Amino acid sequence: MKATVITIGDEILIGQIVDTNTASIARWLNGIGITIAEKLSIGDSREDIVATLHRTLQTSEVVILTGGLGPTKDDITKHTLAQYFGSELKYNATEGEHVRQLLERRGVAFIELNRGQAMLPECCTVLHNSYGTAPGMWFDTKDGGVVISLPGVPFEMEHLMEDEVVPRLKERFTLPDIIHRTMITRGIAESILAERIAEWEESLPDYLHLAYLPAPNIVRLRLSAYDVDGRSASEEIERQFEMLRAIIPDNIVGFEGASVEQLIHDILTRKGLKLAVAESCTGGCIASKFTAMAGASAYFMTGVVSYSNDAKSDILGVNPDDIKRYGAVSEQVARQMAEGARRVGKTDYAIATTGIAGPSGGSIEKPVGTVWMAVATPTTTIALVRNCGSDRSQIISRASAYVIELLYDQLKRI
Amino acid sequence: MKATVITIGDEILIGQIVDTNTASIARWLNGIGITIAEKLSIGDSREDIVATLHRTLQTSEVVILTGGLGPTKDDITKHTLAQYFGSELKYNATEGEHVRQLLERRGVAFIELNRGQAMLPECCTVLHNSYGTAPGMWFDTKDGGVVISLPGVPFEMEHLMEDEVVPRLKERFTLPDIIHRTMITRGIAESILAERIAEWEESLPDYLHLAYLPAPNIVRLRLSAYDVDGRSASEEIERQFEMLRAIIPDNIVGFEGASVEQLIHDILTRKGLKLAVAESCTGGCIASKFTAMAGASAYFMTGVVSYSNDAKSDILGVNPDDIKRYGAVSEQVARQMAEGARRVGKTDYAIATTGIAGPSGGSIEKPVGTVWMAVATPTTTIALVRNCGSDRSQIISRASAYVIELLYDQLKRI
Repeated sequence: MKATVITIGDEILIGQIVDTNTASIARWLNGIGITIAEKLSIGDSREDIVATLHRTLQTSEVVILTGGLGPTKDDITKHTLAQYFGSELKYNATEGEHVRQLLERRGVAFIELNRGQAMLPECCTVLHNSYGTAPGMWFDTKDGGVVISLPGVPFEMEHLMEDEVVPRLKERFTLPDIIHRTMITRGIAESILAERIAEWEESLPDYLHLAYLPAPNIVRLRLSAYDVDGRSASEEIERQFEMLRAIIPDNIVGFEGASVEQLIHDILTRKGLKLAVAESCTGGCIASKFTAMAGASAYFMTGVVSYSNDAKSDILGVNPDDIKRYGAVSEQVARQMAEGARRVGKTDYAIATTGIAGPSGGSIEKPVGTVWMAVATPTTTIALVRNCGSDRSQIISRASAYVIELLYDQLKRI
Repeated sequence: MKATVITIGDEILIGQIVDTNTASIARWLNGIGITIAEKLSIGDSREDIVATLHRTLQTSEVVILTGGLGPTKDDITKHTLAQYFGSELKYNATEGEHVRQLLERRGVAFIELNRGQAMLPECCTVLHNSYGTAPGMWFDTKDGGVVISLPGVPFEMEHLMEDEVVPRLKERFTLPDIIHRTMITRGIAESILAERIAEWEESLPDYLHLAYLPAPNIVRLRLSAYDVDGRSASEEIERQFEMLRAIIPDNIVGFEGASVEQLIHDILTRKGLKLAVAESCTGGCIASKFTAMAGASAYFMTGVVSYSNDAKSDILGVNPDDIKRYGAVSEQVARQMAEGARRVGKTDYAIATTGIAGPSGGSIEKPVGTVWMAVATPTTTIALVRNCGSDRSQIISRASAYVIELLYDQLKRI
């Protein structure tokens, strides 16, 4: 079973927005045994939509399109699909009433353009969109394939995938299993890792595909099996990962997409320990990573983004003389920030960053990218300095990742 | 001039990562007058790469591929391109030495697999990658087209685009101009906006394309002109936007992709005013939005992520009795958080959020998604409550956006 996912909209082709919909749709489809052959983005053009549909339906049983369903003139997906399937648009009273009510709740008048959103191709099955004004559409092709059109608003697309598309696809097709399982390794470069596990890789059964996914200081190893019986493939992957564990016992951090902050989240939650964060150069990035996870309020007590020197002293109790003597980006200040956050937040652990995110503010001794980071634990405080690159967003994300790993190192020992 | 951008990697097709590279490449290419006809992602498969190259080179003069250039077995782009262009791989001593030095600095041994990264197709022009171990490659096709292969690591790709690809494309082709200009409107629903400006839209010259880009409470209007003389098209777009200003004078917030936080960044910087932030449910998201912008340290003094009630009282001075009486998610607490942040941060303005991000913690009176937000100014404090949806990440991002807008409303008046 193969699928193609198409996003429609000039805003994607000119780089005005980043497409996150197709990654999500891919996960939904993989979850029910459908492989994505290709995903692509095309512009708001009738000819391109028609040509792409025609081409991709030759190799994919399922084609999912997102975008181009709004009320304005540049939204042409619905008209193009109606034409493609030789169908007329007809007013759907149920959907029309839903749009009217939704707009009423938002305090927006129901006008002719909105009424147009309930004009739908006669030949399609309407996929009701409870969360928005653009319904989804399901078309059966004469060759047994399916074309599905969904709104581009991520939240609405998600609900339609979950409530309408996935259940219908499972009903319509007999689907095999697809298994992906990812092991996370740390502290070993991709090339060295590949060399060390070469023999193991060589002896993998043909139906297991290995992929290396490198990230700063982390390499993920993914084993995938397509078109298989789920249970036996899963067992074989477990067996293979057990063998890997014997080869690189010290480098395995965890499994799946779990980020290091998720591993920490689990440890702190399980052990009832509490965390505080003091951030200068990372500017709230670390706090937002933890608080993005449901349940974080059980252990995340407080975060202080002490951007100014005053904030470092007033809130965290960093000694102003030390800031003057050693500079805000120094071991002394990083340590006092972590210890101050632990004290103020009344927590077991605290982490801190202070660095030069650039583009200005660097010097010869402390160039842009220099970041001091510290972890305060119930028994000690450790601190180290790292160069986190040269680009502001890179520096923020690397410094966050490094200090989170440093905390994880401490938590692993308890 | 048309281009196709192709990302290679199963991790994209299964939704393990979101592709941000193509959006960035699209911006680079648009900036020099090259239109993206299509962007697509395919798997780590020789046949798919060859078939896609063959198909897209029929309509695009430039094809850019990213990914698949690492040292491991699943990285097949280089071998596939060598084969496609009928060329042998040959060791490039300059690139080999660069890889060796780079790994030495990282403390990684230089092994055979790394040496392989300097094995390059004889027929290509090597694009030196100062920031990584995988060089880029430039191939000239026999029909006058160009195929460019870049590493998938975003940071390395960016530098190669800037330093190597863009200058070479400008030298190689005579390029027209592409102009995009975006006006940001607020407080008017997409459908109502479209109705109000229908006559204006109808009278636009044929070569100007209008697109509507809706976001919560914001609609962006983009005018694009392809294959034009830049100066006259820009002037016409300015003229059209001036006409629009007469039609919807109260709804225009600004221009280009500027986010509301960028507009605030500019105002605070220009006027020498200072900002503090107190966040509960948004958990550092607001602080990280401001601190992501270079120069934020001029006005961003402090952020407090007061997740616990203690943090609200201890750091921000919120009255514990009020938390007990009205609840942490209340007008009283939001006001005191904003006022406390302003006082503690010694700033002119402060904003605060306190809400229920879910999935648990909701009640009938205060369901998940309820967020109280406040803005403290030098003269007053305003507060309001909004429902920000039902999904945790949506609630965090909407609450952040709403309170940032609320601050902007206050700053616009001064």
